Amino acid sequence: MAKVLCVLYDDPVDGYPAKYARDEIPQISSYPGGQTTPSPHAIDFTPGELLGSVSGELGLRRFLENAGHTLVVTSDKDGPDSVFERELPDADIVISQPFWPAYLTRERIAKARNLKLAITAGIGSDHYDLQAASEAGLTIAEITFSNSISVSEHVVMMILSLVRNYIPSYGWVVKGGWNIADCVERSYDLEGMAVGTVAAGRIGSAVLRRLKPFDVRLHYTDLHRLPEDVERDLGVTFHQSAADMVPSGRWKAGSSPGMQAMSGSPSPHRATTPGAACRIMG
Amino acid sequence: MAKVLCVLYDDPVDGYPAKYARDEIPQISSYPGGQTTPSPHAIDFTPGELLGSVSGELGLRRFLENAGHTLVVTSDKDGPDSVFERELPDADIVISQPFWPAYLTRERIAKARNLKLAITAGIGSDHYDLQAASEAGLTIAEITFSNSISVSEHVVMMILSLVRNYIPSYGWVVKGGWNIADCVERSYDLEGMAVGTVAAGRIGSAVLRRLKPFDVRLHYTDLHRLPEDVERDLGVTFHQSAADMVPSGRWKAGSSPGMQAMSGSPSPHRATTPGAACRIMG
Repeated sequence: MAKVLCVLYDDPVDGYPAKYARDEIPQISSYPGGQTTPSPHAIDFTPGELLGSVSGELGLRRFLENAGHTLVVTSDKDGPDSVFERELPDADIVISQPFWPAYLTRERIAKARNLKLAITAGIGSDHYDLQAASEAGLTIAEITFSNSISVSEHVVMMILSLVRNYIPSYGWVVKGGWNIADCVERSYDLEGMAVGTVAAGRIGSAVLRRLKPFDVRLHYTDLHRLPEDVERDLGVTFHQSAADMVPSGRWKAGSSPGMQAMSGSPSPHRATTPGAACRIMG
Repeated sequence: MAKVLCVLYDDPVDGYPAKYARDEIPQISSYPGGQTTPSPHAIDFTPGELLGSVSGELGLRRFLENAGHTLVVTSDKDGPDSVFERELPDADIVISQPFWPAYLTRERIAKARNLKLAITAGIGSDHYDLQAASEAGLTIAEITFSNSISVSEHVVMMILSLVRNYIPSYGWVVKGGWNIADCVERSYDLEGMAVGTVAAGRIGSAVLRRLKPFDVRLHYTDLHRLPEDVERDLGVTFHQSAADMVPSGRWKAGSSPGMQAMSGSPSPHRATTPGAACRIMG
């Protein structure tokens, strides 16, 4: 029987939601490309309800306890006196999240004598010392594609918001102003602009696909070139490196968790040199 | 020789821009559908610079004065003591803007003995008493399609921002919080949702076209049904009225300036009755 130590972000400040903005959420049965989404035999939570915070427990408690396992959930993850560090020595499995990560440093891995598996409930492994984990024989897992479409929607939202000056304009509304000139002097249409993505994997290619009908000029760079028919269908121009891509346009989206793996790829900061027309998104 | 009376919004509070966020803006030579954009013989302003506020004068002063006309520009448009009302009696042409409209009421039209033409520098005619204008023989003109693509981009931005809870999440950032649960408890993916547009003219159909790759279920209603091949291409479902459309989904975008012309169409407010899943955008 395993001890599962789960680190989750805190509940909402006003408490765990009693009701939600939507009555239901769409059923997504397959990813773009045809791969099916997870199909568990049963679930004991309502899809769309908040599971990611402490009280939600990722919907795991009954499932684990019915199978005889132990579940410890905490949001207290930093420092030697944290619940996480106190519970770690006899934990078999650790679960945490990309934006509320329980850091598994070399020191913590050394203390965690029973640890076999560390799961990211989402995508990302920046919070693991991968070398130390490998030496300790730990399995590190993340849930590939679990939020790639979410991120691609977020990227398109951010591109539109930045180009169109949404947030500063919203700021004028909050101040009670009707300052049209202050809103529009930095507001542009996306139409006709050049947009590039560093990496065109699941997220990057979903961004490209969503941006196509905006009548922009699409660019990308990646270690692995997209199939020719996909490039043609998207009307996207390939570049050998991010540095090659920048002079040809104003690139906007960088969506490669492994960006450092791209040999010859400049840091995003270097790419800002072309000036006023270029904007970088992480 | 004509007197042109132009009502424009005020300059930015920090003064007319000395520099801009972008070095240049894209050249758009044709609208979707093939119609060409305006192709003047010459322009005497830099594309992308702010022309809509008082100091920008819509780029018209030299053009008009070189031809012997008079141009009066003001932002002071409301009330009997406004510059607009003072300059109106001998004006031949009035130009104003949808979001800074110089109202042409029956009373003002009666005072404007020389007036022949009222132009909206943009789209919209809510600020004219059209019946009184018609009786006075006035020509009312707007610039069809001049910002339809801008609006369609704005609508997609707003849909994504509302569904994904962008502005409230931004609010947490501003407050210095890292309140993940507070951000995500109202945040959803657009993927798989039903999105409907009331009217599918230039704006509505541009919205539908941009939303298609988000893998949503598209719906629309309009007095004029789209061609069958366009419906098939967009995968969009037609409804006889907005009321018919609502029960089938959660519609989000209403983009018909002439919505009141749609017989049998409910007011947007009536359409909110289906509850938590439905959101209306103006």
